[in-house]
Amino acid sequence: MRKLKNNNKLVIVGVGHVGSYVLADAMKLGLFSEISVIDINKEVAFGEALDQAHATALTYMTNTTVKAGDYSECADADVIICAAGPSVLKSSEDEMPDRALLAVKNAAVIREVMTGITAYTKEAIIIMITNPLDTMVYIAENEFNYPKGRVFGTGTMLDSARLRYVIANNYNIDPKSVTGYMMGEHGHTAFPVFSRLNIQGFGEKELDQVFKGKEPLHREEIGKQVVKSAFDVLNGKGWTNAGIAQAAVTLAKAIMLDEHSVYPISTTLRGQYGYDGDVAFSMPCIVGRNGVEKQLEISLDEQETEWLHKSAKYIQETMKVAQTGKEFIK
Amino acid sequence: MRKLKNNNKLVIVGVGHVGSYVLADAMKLGLFSEISVIDINKEVAFGEALDQAHATALTYMTNTTVKAGDYSECADADVIICAAGPSVLKSSEDEMPDRALLAVKNAAVIREVMTGITAYTKEAIIIMITNPLDTMVYIAENEFNYPKGRVFGTGTMLDSARLRYVIANNYNIDPKSVTGYMMGEHGHTAFPVFSRLNIQGFGEKELDQVFKGKEPLHREEIGKQVVKSAFDVLNGKGWTNAGIAQAAVTLAKAIMLDEHSVYPISTTLRGQYGYDGDVAFSMPCIVGRNGVEKQLEISLDEQETEWLHKSAKYIQETMKVAQTGKEFIK
Amino acid sequence: MRKLKNNNKLVIVGVGHVGSYVLADAMKLGLFSEISVIDINKEVAFGEALDQAHATALTYMTNTTVKAGDYSECADADVIICAAGPSVLKSSEDEMPDRALLAVKNAAVIREVMTGITAYTKEAIIIMITNPLDTMVYIAENEFNYPKGRVFGTGTMLDSARLRYVIANNYNIDPKSVTGYMMGEHGHTAFPVFSRLNIQGFGEKELDQVFKGKEPLHREEIGKQVVKSAFDVLNGKGWTNAGIAQAAVTLAKAIMLDEHSVYPISTTLRGQYGYDGDVAFSMPCIVGRNGVEKQLEISLDEQETEWLHKSAKYIQETMKVAQTGKEFIK
Amino acid sequence: MRKLKNNNKLVIVGVGHVGSYVLADAMKLGLFSEISVIDINKEVAFGEALDQAHATALTYMTNTTVKAGDYSECADADVIICAAGPSVLKSSEDEMPDRALLAVKNAAVIREVMTGITAYTKEAIIIMITNPLDTMVYIAENEFNYPKGRVFGTGTMLDSARLRYVIANNYNIDPKSVTGYMMGEHGHTAFPVFSRLNIQGFGEKELDQVFKGKEPLHREEIGKQVVKSAFDVLNGKGWTNAGIAQAAVTLAKAIMLDEHSVYPISTTLRGQYGYDGDVAFSMPCIVGRNGVEKQLEISLDEQETEWLHKSAKYIQETMKVAQTGKEFIK
Repeated sequence: MRKLKNNNKLVIVGVGHVGSYVLADAMKLGLFSEISVIDINKEVAFGEALDQAHATALTYMTNTTVKAGDYSECADADVIICAAGPSVLKSSEDEMPDRALLAVKNAAVIREVMTGITAYTKEAIIIMITNPLDTMVYIAENEFNYPKGRVFGTGTMLDSARLRYVIANNYNIDPKSVTGYMMGEHGHTAFPVFSRLNIQGFGEKELDQVFKGKEPLHREEIGKQVVKSAFDVLNGKGWTNAGIAQAAVTLAKAIMLDEHSVYPISTTLRGQYGYDGDVAFSMPCIVGRNGVEKQLEISLDEQETEWLHKSAKYIQETMKVAQTGKEFIK
Repeated sequence: MRKLKNNNKLVIVGVGHVGSYVLADAMKLGLFSEISVIDINKEVAFGEALDQAHATALTYMTNTTVKAGDYSECADADVIICAAGPSVLKSSEDEMPDRALLAVKNAAVIREVMTGITAYTKEAIIIMITNPLDTMVYIAENEFNYPKGRVFGTGTMLDSARLRYVIANNYNIDPKSVTGYMMGEHGHTAFPVFSRLNIQGFGEKELDQVFKGKEPLHREEIGKQVVKSAFDVLNGKGWTNAGIAQAAVTLAKAIMLDEHSVYPISTTLRGQYGYDGDVAFSMPCIVGRNGVEKQLEISLDEQETEWLHKSAKYIQETMKVAQTGKEFIK
Repeated sequence: MRKLKNNNKLVIVGVGHVGSYVLADAMKLGLFSEISVIDINKEVAFGEALDQAHATALTYMTNTTVKAGDYSECADADVIICAAGPSVLKSSEDEMPDRALLAVKNAAVIREVMTGITAYTKEAIIIMITNPLDTMVYIAENEFNYPKGRVFGTGTMLDSARLRYVIANNYNIDPKSVTGYMMGEHGHTAFPVFSRLNIQGFGEKELDQVFKGKEPLHREEIGKQVVKSAFDVLNGKGWTNAGIAQAAVTLAKAIMLDEHSVYPISTTLRGQYGYDGDVAFSMPCIVGRNGVEKQLEISLDEQETEWLHKSAKYIQETMKVAQTGKEFIK
Repeated sequence: MRKLKNNNKLVIVGVGHVGSYVLADAMKLGLFSEISVIDINKEVAFGEALDQAHATALTYMTNTTVKAGDYSECADADVIICAAGPSVLKSSEDEMPDRALLAVKNAAVIREVMTGITAYTKEAIIIMITNPLDTMVYIAENEFNYPKGRVFGTGTMLDSARLRYVIANNYNIDPKSVTGYMMGEHGHTAFPVFSRLNIQGFGEKELDQVFKGKEPLHREEIGKQVVKSAFDVLNGKGWTNAGIAQAAVTLAKAIMLDEHSVYPISTTLRGQYGYDGDVAFSMPCIVGRNGVEKQLEISLDEQETEWLHKSAKYIQETMKVAQTGKEFIK
């Protein structure tokens, strides 16, 4: 009698600040029978896995098998979350931290990771977190002949969560009662889609009169607060990981359980907004067992359209840097 | 009409490696309406809280209010988890990392923290994580006239989880199917209570014949593996946080919901095993809304009793160091 | 030393088809330290509580104290969910089941329940489920001098869930990706607020072109499908309880954790839509620790406004029936 | 590009009092992408599935696809839970409700169900709940050539939960802190394995001196209380479903995630306690992806051994009744 195949395997590539939080959050889902951790620093991978394994002995914890391994772990993985490579770091006072500067270094990392993964599988759904995100997604999706939809990036999931938090905080409501998202680059050219933002149907123009906000809703002001909120985390603790990790495991769950949830994630455009295979950025997508089940092209107002093209152009410049390996000049 | 009092407030003091994981785990419980974070580095506290606040905007996340603050946050806290102070660090190759060496430094930290807390409350249940744990518990419990039972330490919760993991791993079963714990110091003199260890009623002597273990069960060997398991985490990733954080939030839940669960935690002894107010270490205790509801003195076999006194003596020496502030000589 | 007050107590009044599911769902939240069950049939209450108490001994279950009791249990309750009284029953083939016909009988039940509760507390937040819901809410809120906001009904929470399910099912997406709700009566005059319906910002007019729906979106057709969906459950199993119970515990969690979530719930109007103290029905409200924190008057289009007044009129007729005790003539 | 196979499918056969609770509990796990419901009453199955589907539109609920279907749904099922057939009913005052009397009727039901399932799969793990449980397990396991381990019964999972609850209630502790179980028949000849019972290592003889119990621990008295506890539920509400449903989904999770948890479940004996293929009853077993991974023969004391053989004999008599179809005479 043959042994039945185990379901529900997650592989995490890279367990630094972000990957270790992805691991911690994934352990809490009660969804994975097995989680394998890959890191160039094998001792760190081993230590992280073992620390989490100890926690499985505590009340309420699912007995997920968690261990360190190499790329062969990907062979029977359902989902792979890639958080490899250095992340954006706290920068000195007078310059903005710039994800683009990481492009050259992390392009090499992602090529190595994708080479490792594709040696074993093209079936797993890959969720990319490594920055600069959209460029990394573009490389992973287009240089390795990976099936369309099966690799994508967390994109503006986190930027959108910040937008909803800023809005919710202003009106003192549950951020889950806010419908809204950022599009474009995961980074400082991301833009809020104000024309579609709503709190349970109350649109942009109505919010101030219906809810008692701390401050009136100005597009520019909100945009700035979202960016500031990101920098506040970065400058405060030196990195961001809690929000992005939760975004990644939310996507992993949507995949595993084929939820068909609509999330703003990053994938190469195929005809939307006039782009065709020449850039990856975030727009609302349906996420299910096959990864990106469908990209949803939402019509934007004039200002948002302008923002979109500006963001796309910025990503394309980063992509060029990643390809040429030359230093990116702002 | 007066506003109703909010329930379910957690305060976390210290958000380094351990405290930040406590925060992350506590956010997942769906149990706290409010979590406040205190750290001497106010920017880190602010960044950690904000990062978690962003995550509340994601699907499935509870809208817990999370923010940074000062000790006045303790005034209406139900539970306070203290992870302040430096933790045990990766040591150089030829010496054992020694929690005792932290005694002097962290004694000062804990006195500062307890002074801060007691300025606002003696009602909150305080869960201590700071090492050397038992000494810190002793100081917190006995120098501030804090009501008996309302302050205690995570103790050997983690050491016990490791023991169950090692046993479970050997026999390839769910560690939650193992009943067993370590007693004494949280640290390298902790000892497994083999005489009470069982897998669903199968005792120490029966395990090898019933389950097919990878290796035969030898007391010394298991004891070594538990210690090794701790060092593997420490040496692998540079610190341990996942297991201890989960232990702390498990205790926090037991308190909030008055679960009356039996866990091995650290509190000053009052007549048990011949100690009376002169040492704190871990034994099984009932944990409920009032903190330690009852200490349970379990009778030990000869070897275990010897281990217990050795462990108590070691803690008392550390206590002495912490009191005198002099360097501890092994 | 005084014992600390337990937090997090839920009381459930009425454990028939609906109340027993409320109990089962509430036990899974890991949020309540104590749940007390009140029923005119004391044996049923005892049996339901004990059955759930047995389940607490299983892995992963929170040790919530669950027991049967009388109205004195309400004295320290945080939340009370009332599912007392007969529910809508499967009717014979050629007549519509009519919640209004229950008005007279359940008005008496609710007066008895509110008399029982108010003998012990006016602090607990009361969530009403008993049908005809809006009339019951009106009685509970206005005849017992209960503080404004502290009693309200599940309202169109379930009707709205059905609307989102119908929409989501048509477009094969996660219903949680749909923002939308029904307003007015909980019952067959409830109406979808199409003008505000959206799937992550895609509005009513765009859905068909963006998502590949099984059928084109027609207001009348969708309205009919929502009503049909309710009757399919009712006619299929003889009652509905799963959806409504989950709605009630979702509200209970929003209260306990002060989530400030926006949900469509039923409460007496105070100036909104031209009604002032003369009817209760569902509109979006902010739900927090004080119950209904704020009613949100959303502007409606012409058709929706017409539907609203029709629904309000229908409820007022039911209210009249409940007051006079006379038979309601359609 | 081929579509990826969905993971995590549960089929529930029979949605009466028990099956409907299994469904409700399974929906809360966040573990299944798909749940299909089969019932001879197709309308009930349809209504139950739709009611749960509506609930998926509420905050925090996983978007599990839930629907009614026929046995073809089993083809790609991972786990099947069978709660088909009439359950034990409230009996008149002076006679004990007797699961054995259901044997003839439910033997026919189970044969029909197994015929239905095996037409499509022998890979799914089948969890049997139908009573008289051990007889039903014996039939399902031995008459259909179903692979060993892949079909088993919830057995004394519930009886054991009741035992732990009774013990925990007596000593006012969390029942999850009690290690203990009943063996033998799921029914009134089940017996507590007192010799192995412990509260975190404190054994039978020590409990009264260590914990302050409401009543002293007498084997007979505890045995009676466990039986009484079952009858209190049955007589109180007319059936039992909450505890047994939670037991079933706990097992389903252990299977799906390959937890290798040790639970007391019912399966045909193969050499244990002198029985070989001639009876099925509950003993501790390891539960994993392959169902029963291993039966664990625990040595019993004299009294327990006597109880075991008495229970086995009682089951064999029920088995005989089920085979012959003749009325069972006590």
